[in-house]
Parts: sequence; structure tokens; C-alpha cells
Amino acid sequence: TQHAQITSFSHYLLAYVDALFRDLERIRECYSRINRSPLGSCALAGSSLPLDREMTARLLGFEGLVENSIDGVSSRDFAVEALACSAILMADLSRISEDLILWSSSEFGYVEVADAYSSTSSVMPHKKNPCTLELIRGKTGTVYGGLLGSLTAVKGLMTGYNRDLQEAKRTLWASIDTVKESLEILIPIFKTLKINRDRMFEVASGSYAQAIDLAEELVGRGLSFREAHRLVGNIVRDLVESKRMLSSLRPEEIGEASQRILGRMVSVTSEDLKRIFNPYNSISSRRTLGSPNPEEVNRMVRDRLRRLKDSKRDVKIEVERLERVWKDLFDMVKSIISR
Amino acid sequence: TQHAQITSFSHYLLAYVDALFRDLERIRECYSRINRSPLGSCALAGSSLPLDREMTARLLGFEGLVENSIDGVSSRDFAVEALACSAILMADLSRISEDLILWSSSEFGYVEVADAYSSTSSVMPHKKNPCTLELIRGKTGTVYGGLLGSLTAVKGLMTGYNRDLQEAKRTLWASIDTVKESLEILIPIFKTLKINRDRMFEVASGSYAQAIDLAEELVGRGLSFREAHRLVGNIVRDLVESKRMLSSLRPEEIGEASQRILGRMVSVTSEDLKRIFNPYNSISSRRTLGSPNPEEVNRMVRDRLRRLKDSKRDVKIEVERLERVWKDLFDMVKSIISR
Amino acid sequence: TQHAQITSFSHYLLAYVDALFRDLERIRECYSRINRSPLGSCALAGSSLPLDREMTARLLGFEGLVENSIDGVSSRDFAVEALACSAILMADLSRISEDLILWSSSEFGYVEVADAYSSTSSVMPHKKNPCTLELIRGKTGTVYGGLLGSLTAVKGLMTGYNRDLQEAKRTLWASIDTVKESLEILIPIFKTLKINRDRMFEVASGSYAQAIDLAEELVGRGLSFREAHRLVGNIVRDLVESKRMLSSLRPEEIGEASQRILGRMVSVTSEDLKRIFNPYNSISSRRTLGSPNPEEVNRMVRDRLRRLKDSKRDVKIEVERLERVWKDLFDMVKSIISR
Amino acid sequence: TQHAQITSFSHYLLAYVDALFRDLERIRECYSRINRSPLGSCALAGSSLPLDREMTARLLGFEGLVENSIDGVSSRDFAVEALACSAILMADLSRISEDLILWSSSEFGYVEVADAYSSTSSVMPHKKNPCTLELIRGKTGTVYGGLLGSLTAVKGLMTGYNRDLQEAKRTLWASIDTVKESLEILIPIFKTLKINRDRMFEVASGSYAQAIDLAEELVGRGLSFREAHRLVGNIVRDLVESKRMLSSLRPEEIGEASQRILGRMVSVTSEDLKRIFNPYNSISSRRTLGSPNPEEVNRMVRDRLRRLKDSKRDVKIEVERLERVWKDLFDMVKSIISR
Repeated sequence: TQHAQITSFSHYLLAYVDALFRDLERIRECYSRINRSPLGSCALAGSSLPLDREMTARLLGFEGLVENSIDGVSSRDFAVEALACSAILMADLSRISEDLILWSSSEFGYVEVADAYSSTSSVMPHKKNPCTLELIRGKTGTVYGGLLGSLTAVKGLMTGYNRDLQEAKRTLWASIDTVKESLEILIPIFKTLKINRDRMFEVASGSYAQAIDLAEELVGRGLSFREAHRLVGNIVRDLVESKRMLSSLRPEEIGEASQRILGRMVSVTSEDLKRIFNPYNSISSRRTLGSPNPEEVNRMVRDRLRRLKDSKRDVKIEVERLERVWKDLFDMVKSIISR
Repeated sequence: TQHAQITSFSHYLLAYVDALFRDLERIRECYSRINRSPLGSCALAGSSLPLDREMTARLLGFEGLVENSIDGVSSRDFAVEALACSAILMADLSRISEDLILWSSSEFGYVEVADAYSSTSSVMPHKKNPCTLELIRGKTGTVYGGLLGSLTAVKGLMTGYNRDLQEAKRTLWASIDTVKESLEILIPIFKTLKINRDRMFEVASGSYAQAIDLAEELVGRGLSFREAHRLVGNIVRDLVESKRMLSSLRPEEIGEASQRILGRMVSVTSEDLKRIFNPYNSISSRRTLGSPNPEEVNRMVRDRLRRLKDSKRDVKIEVERLERVWKDLFDMVKSIISR
Repeated sequence: TQHAQITSFSHYLLAYVDALFRDLERIRECYSRINRSPLGSCALAGSSLPLDREMTARLLGFEGLVENSIDGVSSRDFAVEALACSAILMADLSRISEDLILWSSSEFGYVEVADAYSSTSSVMPHKKNPCTLELIRGKTGTVYGGLLGSLTAVKGLMTGYNRDLQEAKRTLWASIDTVKESLEILIPIFKTLKINRDRMFEVASGSYAQAIDLAEELVGRGLSFREAHRLVGNIVRDLVESKRMLSSLRPEEIGEASQRILGRMVSVTSEDLKRIFNPYNSISSRRTLGSPNPEEVNRMVRDRLRRLKDSKRDVKIEVERLERVWKDLFDMVKSIISR
Repeated sequence: TQHAQITSFSHYLLAYVDALFRDLERIRECYSRINRSPLGSCALAGSSLPLDREMTARLLGFEGLVENSIDGVSSRDFAVEALACSAILMADLSRISEDLILWSSSEFGYVEVADAYSSTSSVMPHKKNPCTLELIRGKTGTVYGGLLGSLTAVKGLMTGYNRDLQEAKRTLWASIDTVKESLEILIPIFKTLKINRDRMFEVASGSYAQAIDLAEELVGRGLSFREAHRLVGNIVRDLVESKRMLSSLRPEEIGEASQRILGRMVSVTSEDLKRIFNPYNSISSRRTLGSPNPEEVNRMVRDRLRRLKDSKRDVKIEVERLERVWKDLFDMVKSIISR
């Protein structure tokens, strides 16, 4: 596929920041469904003994109960959901990995993954393979497999506890470990990633992608959307056929083409073209919300940093709560034992 | 597997009511992630034209934006999430179907599925197969397949729009249709389901499952949990070996066994045993939250009906909002066209 | 679902013998695709050094080469195929397990799984769960997951070696281990399985399934297939409605019904009916190839034992060949080292 | 990832020829397991009527029987196997598609997919997306989904016929259609594919991949493998660091480096280097079986064309046999009807 539009690397990164925020949101919603106590469900149908399920749930740090005792014993939808969240998150990590693998190829040359996260060979020191990223991609399949394995295990079980569910649990822990390892390795990979700005600028400058900027400029100058598209489409087709770059376009060619195609003269100066075809200007000219315009990118960065801070704080509060619960429980057990 | 504990059919149904409420919750959370406008993302990187993305989102009835334009064009995690929600919901429907299929077999005989939802043959009019339920079970696999297909399509795509995603969309619509049809067919199946109370009572009465009720009774009379388990375990083992039913147990056998095993006398009268082994009493004696105790079941039914009413109201409000948005948009388009 | 026809347990077992023979056939065909040497493919495109690929393949015991060096480095279809064979085999084992789990329930009571392969609880010694079978069922999901994980990993890889494939290898070993363990545990489960012939005979005798035997008898006596079906269908419907067993049917009822429905008299004696409704006779009367007729079953048993012997011999020959290759290779390495 | 070794496009194509031959082999083996008649199995347990199963199988054109009648009614492993063959084949087609998509990007520029199989936009006539290839990639996920769906449906079914299997059949037809369409669209795509030899030659010439050719040349001149690797590894590292191409290497640099690293002089002339670093020579120098050496490639092309001819003939014979069977059956039916 050829380039459609020019954008910036920070704009790209922000896209995945937003995708990962959705992953986080899913995980937190799933957590509140998981974080419920089945204790006191007994074999299936509760007990005639005076067990206080709400108290035991509180002591163990749960948010609440899986109330119905059959539901408590035989449901595993929350575990499957956790695996689904993991699979969707891994799909995002796999796409990021795929992008970086491609962009670190000699044909693209946009980025370089640090040696620590690559494999090389003695006779081919030039051949650095970002094998950690390939492993993330590969492990994505394994997490998918875990999800599908659990879906398969859960389906068709008679209601009640079945030992099949034991296997689903093993899969769940393994998948969560994989997700954690994949996230943990991506952090230093990004911290040490070398960005080849010059190569990116070179490719951006040599691309036909700014045709769309020219069309939008002409719309700004009074052409209808339809006319601008038709005119620019014709101009670009001629350039492609004569193997010329977009940057070689001269003002008089636009004038001639507009006369011929639209029946009237459209004037653009050399200075205009130089400005339009400068990748930096192209990006700065985008005005829509969420575009790569540097001001817009900065606004989004500030906003996401704030959201990240909030999320971190929320996680910290929950972790501290769980530590407190655990300590209280431990103390209580000790005091009962020592009676 | 043998019976572990006795419960009631209403208690069973309530378990799936709660599972389905979790399914609903997942769908609504997913909806709020889906219900965002990508419009104005353009090919990938926004536009230099003065497009008001928030206004177009509002006019189209979206809750908000997929802000980052790359994210808007290339993310499909929400679609995969919708398929994951569908797959988990189908797993629940498949388990319900599996239970009913089994319980309608001649060996179980707990329920009968109405003829309208069964298939018969001319020479074997006795042979009613609940084929609609078997189809739900079979279609669960198809929805699983849709989830896997989308996860596979999404993974490893270079960031940006790829035509692969078109296929994922087709799968999504097909899966949602399957989910809807499966839910719609289950409603009349349950409405016309014949419950064989007598057969259920007979099986409950003839089961060893009330051993646990006897053990809990003894704990109520001062035995430790451990002693009660040991005593009752021994008694039941002897009964099983001599092929006797639990209901044939006589008070003096308990006395003799307790003397022999625990070294002290435990007295239970015939009346006690009769009471303990009556399935109705067994169920009524459960005291824990979420147990099949009829009072507890009634409380849960009332509570879930209230939640259902609230959910229906929320859905109605959203549907009406969307209809209003659609009408306004239609009117606006008409007025623009007729200018 | 209700019973359609009566059959025998040996006939049932033979069905899975045949399914497992197909599994074996698939595995052997896959083996001949796997058993090929990629050695000498180098990084991707072979070598200018005088490497004799055929000799190294022979020394390592391979059947032949993956000839094309790119194919040798980047193809993994044989590994995915091995996982597909494993998944299909596990599906068969899971169905066998499902049957045994169901048939060992108190409602069915056809078989009993030995204690060694069941779990019990102290207070519920009657409650034997065939947990090993449940685990086979659960692990089937895991093997499915392994297949899907590998399919996912393989898809969309650029041609060439990618580290993703390392993950697929891990999955392959794990799946093969699971298959082996599942097969190994089923052997003693079947060896120690208690078959409750009496219970099976009782259920067979009390079932409406022999309606089809009556219909076939009448066809033998000159009724058309259509007439026999219509007549028997009507008779059975009346019996079901009046809750009578098939065995309570009297000759005069058949006469009366045939007169009413077909307009002519069909005579069957009490002795005929007794013979027709005897489950043993029902089974013995089947004449088609592959039916449960004891003679046919015995023929199939003898034939399958012969095929099993042949298969075992073939496997033994290949194992011995591999041991010989290994020894020769080991000796050669030793002699080179000690030069 | 960077280039490891240079190869030729024909060598690449031959790799997939071999992969596709394995796919064909799998499909033919599966066909012989599918091509068996279950007719006469009746509901489950055969018939007492004198049905000649072998004759009906022959009349319908089957190769043989699914002998055991339970197996005939309840097994679907052959259908799952057909889906597994489809999924593995689609994985190969998806990898081919992925390669072509990547190689048609402006960064690679190795190939051009004809307009008929691409999508363009009016304003961006330069932007040709090989959308048919993207759809093959996307549909691969759908076929994977079909396999999973069937595996899921089959697992856990009680033995006997269940309506779940109806759904599996629908999936099977859909998957086979997808496979056929994908194969059919790839044929004209390859027939019209534009190969940019010059661009490929340019990339091959500018790559460090020929370092391995230099190392092998030195091994040919008496260096040990280890020495050659060490020496060339050092030389390439220095070139990479000073951003020099491999082709800029001068003989005296090799001499100097060999003196420094190995302690002795290795002489290579300018002519040697020119020859070694010429991509055509590099490829011609490969001597191993299955390498891109043009002679070896030609041999493989001739051999595969012969195999293809044989395969086509076999398929033709089977198709003609089936047409004859169909005609005979049709005639027989007509003659029976007209009696």
C-alpha cells in the first residue's frame, strides 16, 4: 500500500496510547466483575450453617458476592472475559510490534531497535532481528489460543462444578503472565528505540501523499471539493506516469491543467507549492480534533498524561487496600491461632 | 457425576439470570466504547478543512469521538470486544441448552421441550429431539469462530486502514444476528417448557445428596465439622456398598456408627431423619445468602425483576434518543436538499 | 433426546476404534510430511559450500528433504497439521469422555469409573466424579487453543524465518504431551470400567426404540415401508399418550389399528411381539454391514485386531529404524571426535 | 529484519509451489477418508431389512463405507479435517498475500499488482491498494473461525446424531467456497503481476547480505569456517559503523583486517570482490539441492510441472469417474420410474 497522508510519529504513538487506555478500561471493568466472593456457595446450593458470606467476602478483600450459589460454583464467564481482555490487549501489542518490525527493516529504515532486544549473528552483524517483537507477535497467538481453549472448555458443561474448569484456570494464569511480560519488555524497547527522523522526513518529502494537501488548499481557494479532487487526481496521474515526484510540480502545470480540465485558470505560486509540499507545513495545516497538528498533539499528550496519573493513582489505592486487607486477615488468623 | 446437593429449579434459573445480567453489563460497557464517531479522521491524519468533528458526532447520535485520527481509522478492538461479549453470552446460552437437552432425555426426564421446538419422526413419535437447543449449541461454535476470525484478522495488520477489516465487519453482523435469534428462540422455549416436578422430587428423594444435610444437622448438635464429616462419610459408604437408599437409614444405625467411629453416642430420632431427608426441608434449611431457601429465592426474584425493569427503561431511553437523533438528522438533510 | 435404536456396548466401542484408526492414519500421513530434513537450507537460500543435503538427511534418519531452501526455513504447515491431528484426536477422546461421564451419572448408571480415576469427598463417598475424564474434556480446549494459536502465529508472517515460530514449537510439544497423557489415562480407565449390563438391559427393554423393529418386521411381512411407518407411528403415539410401555402392546391392538389406518388386517402373535421386543433379538436381527449384530460385531473385532497388529508392527519397525540411525550417527560422531 | 541472503523471485515462487503441493496432498488424503458412504447406518444401529450397503455405496460413487453404523451417523472428524486442510491452505495464501502487499508498498517497490485487483481513489491515483490480497488475508481469519466453530461443535457431543452437526456443515461449505474464490483470484493476480527486476537488483546490490558469500569464498580458499566468520563479521561491522556499502570494500582492507584479526594475510583481488558481490554470481554460486542456483531452479520447475501434470490427470480421472457414476445412477432411476 502507498502512503495516503503524512503524519508524525508522536501522532502514531498517541493512537496506541488511546487504544491501550481502552484496554485498561476493559480490564478494570472486568476486575469489578471478577472481584466477587463465591465463598459460602458450598457444593452448589449453600449451607444450613450460619455462614456470613458478606463478612468473609469483606475479610478477603472482595468488592462483593457472586450471590447465587450455583452461579458461584459453575460460572466462569469472568475468567473468559479476562482472557478476552488479554487477547484484545495482545492484538494491540502485536500490531505495535508488527509496525516496529516493518519500520526497522532496511527497506523502511524508520526506527532501530536496540541491540539488547535484537538478535544478531557473527557473520552478519548488519542483520539485527528485533526478535523480542517477533516473540510478542508469536505469543499473541498463544493468548488467543488460551481464550479459545477456555471458551471451548466452558461451553457445553453441565451446570455445576466440573473439573474441566481446572484447566481453564491454568490457561488464565499463563496468559496473564504472557501479557505482563510482553508489556514489560515493550517499555525498555520504546525507551531505547532510535527514531530515524531524517529517513522519515526523506520518505515524507518524496511521497505523493501531499496531493491531498494540494487539493485541500485549492478547496480553500474556492474550488468545490469535487473540482479540486478531479484536478489534483489528473495532475498526480500524469506525474506518476512520467515518474516525476510531486515536488517537481510547477505552477504553470497547474494552471494549464486547470484550464484544460475545469475550463478556468487556477493560479498557485512556486512559494505556495513549496509551502504545501513541505511535510512540516502539511502536518501543521491539519485543523481537526485528533489530527497530527503539533498543537493538537501537545494537547493530547498533556491530557493523556493527566489520565495516566489518575489511573496510576486509582491502581495504587486499590493495591494499598488489598495489602491492608491481607495484613488485617493475617493478624486475625494469627490471633485466632494463638488463642 | 453424582448429585452433591439438592436445589430447586427456580434457584437454577436465577443462576442464569445473574449470568445474563453480567452479559448485559458487558454489552453496555462495550456499547459505550463503540458508540464513538471516527468521522473526520480522513484517510488517517485529519484534515486542513474546517470540519467540526464534535458537531458531526452529535448529529449522528454518537456519545463522543474516537479522538486520535489514526486510532479512528485503524482500531477495531471495540468490534472484537463485541464479538467476545457475544461469544461469552453464547457460552451461557449453550450451557442452558445443554442442561435442558440432558434433562429432557428419557434417563433424566426433568423437563419436556414443546413440540414446536422439537423434531420428531413419523415412525418414532416418542423420539422428540430438542433440535432448536441443539442448534443454539451448534451456533455457539460459529460465534466462537467469528471471534477467532476477527482476532486473527486484526492481529498483525500494519497500522492504518486495511481491507481485511471489511471481512471482520461481515463476521460481526452475522454473529450479532445469531445471538439475537438464539435469545429470541429461548424465550418461547422457556415459556412452553413442561417441568416434571414429580420426577425431580423422586430423584431428589432417592439421592444420597442429603448426606450433607445430615452432616450439617449433626454440626448443629455439637459435633465438630470434622467429626460430622467422618461419621456421615462412613455411614453413607456402608449404605452405598449394601445398595441401600439414604432414606432407609435408621436412628440406631447412626447411634451404633457414632459409638464405633467417634467413641460417643449421637442420637437422632426417626422424625429427625424423616425431616432431614425430605427434599423440601433440605432446601428450606439453607440459610446462606444466595441459597435455594424459598425466602431467599423470592427475595432474589423480586430484586432481579427490579433490576430488569431498570435495564429495560435504560434501553428504552437510549432507543428513543437514537430515534430522535435520526429524525432530526433526516429533517436537516431534507431542509438542506430543498434549499 | 430419546432413544432411536437399541445397540450394544461393543458396537459403540467399535465405532471409536474406527474413529481412532482414522486418527492414526492422519498422524502417519502427517509424519511422512514432517519427517523431512531442512538441513542445508542455510539462512534461506542454500550454500556455495559442497554440502550433501541428501547424505545429512539420511544420517539424521529423515525420509527425505524439504527441498526448496526457502520452504525449508519458513514453512510450518506440517507443525500446524500435527496440531490439527492432535485436536481432532482430542475431540474423539473428549466425546468418549463425555459419554462415560454421562453414563456414569446416577440418572444413567450404565458404567462406573474406578475409584482410582475418580475423585470423592469424605462427607459424600457416594459422589464419585470421573475427574480424569473431565480433565481430558478440559484439556481438549487447550489443544484446540494450541492449534489456533499456531494458525494465528503462522498467518501473516513474511516469508523467511521469524522468531514467532519459536512460540509455535513450544505449543506443539505441549499439545503432543497432552494427547499422550490423555491416551495413556484412558487405557486403564477402560480396563477397570465397570459395565452395568443389567441397567443397560433394563433401559433397553423399557424404551420405545424397538418401534422401528416392529416396523421392519411388518415390512418383512409385505407392508410397504410407508404403510409400516404410518401404522407403527400411530400405535406408538397412542401408547405414549396413555403412558404405556411398548412391551404392553397386545396383538389385537395391532390388528385393530391396521384395520382402521390401512384398511386391512395385519396379524402378529403374542410370541412375535415378545420376540421383536426382546433387546437381544432386536440386535441380532440387524443384517446390514457394520450393524450391532453379534456376528457382525465379532467379524469387526477380529478385523480390527488384525489391523491393530499390523499398525503396531509398522510403528515398531520405524522405531527400530530410528534407534539404528541414532546409534550409527552416535558411533560416527565418536569416531570423528577421537581421530 | 535485514536481509540474510540474496535469492531469486523464481526460487521464492517455487517455495510456495512446494507448500501448495503439500496442501494438495493433504486434501487428497482427506478426500479418501471423506469419500465413504454412511448410507444404511439408519438411525444409529443398522437395519434388519436386506440393504446392500456396498451396492448403494458403489452406485453413489463412494470409494467405500464408513462401516460401523454408529461411526457413520455420529462422526464428523473428516469434516473437521477438511476445514483444517482449508485453514492450513489459507495460511499459505495469506502469507503469499502478505508478501505481495509488502513488496508492492512504495518502500519496497518489488512488484505491482494490476489495477483490476487494486483499489484507487480519484484524488490519490498514486495510492493503489492491493485490496484483493488484503481480502484473502482477512478471509483467512474467517476460515480459521470455521475450523474452530466445527471443532467446538463436535467436542462434547454425546455420541449419536445431534443437530449441532447441521451448523458444522454450513460452515464447511462456506469455507470451501472461500478457499476456491481465494485460489481463483490469485491466478490472474500472478498472471498480471508486474515484477520490478531493476528495483530488486538495486536492493540486492546495495545490501550487506553478500557478506555470507564473501565468507564462503574465504572458506573455499582455506580459511576455517570459524576464521572466515570472524574476519567477515569484523569487516562488516566496520562498514556498517562508517555507513559504507559492502560494494565499497577494497582488497587492501581485507588484507589489513585479516592480518590484524587472524594474524595472517588473506589476499582477494578487486576482480574477486566484484564477482562475489554481483548478485547474479552470488546466486549462481549456490551448489546445494533446493538452492536458487538457476540450474537448480530450472530443474525444480521442470520437476514440479511434471508433478502438476500428473496431479491434473488424476483429478480429471476422478471427475470423469464421478460424472459416469452420476449418469449411470440417473439412467437407473429413470428406468425404474418408467417401469
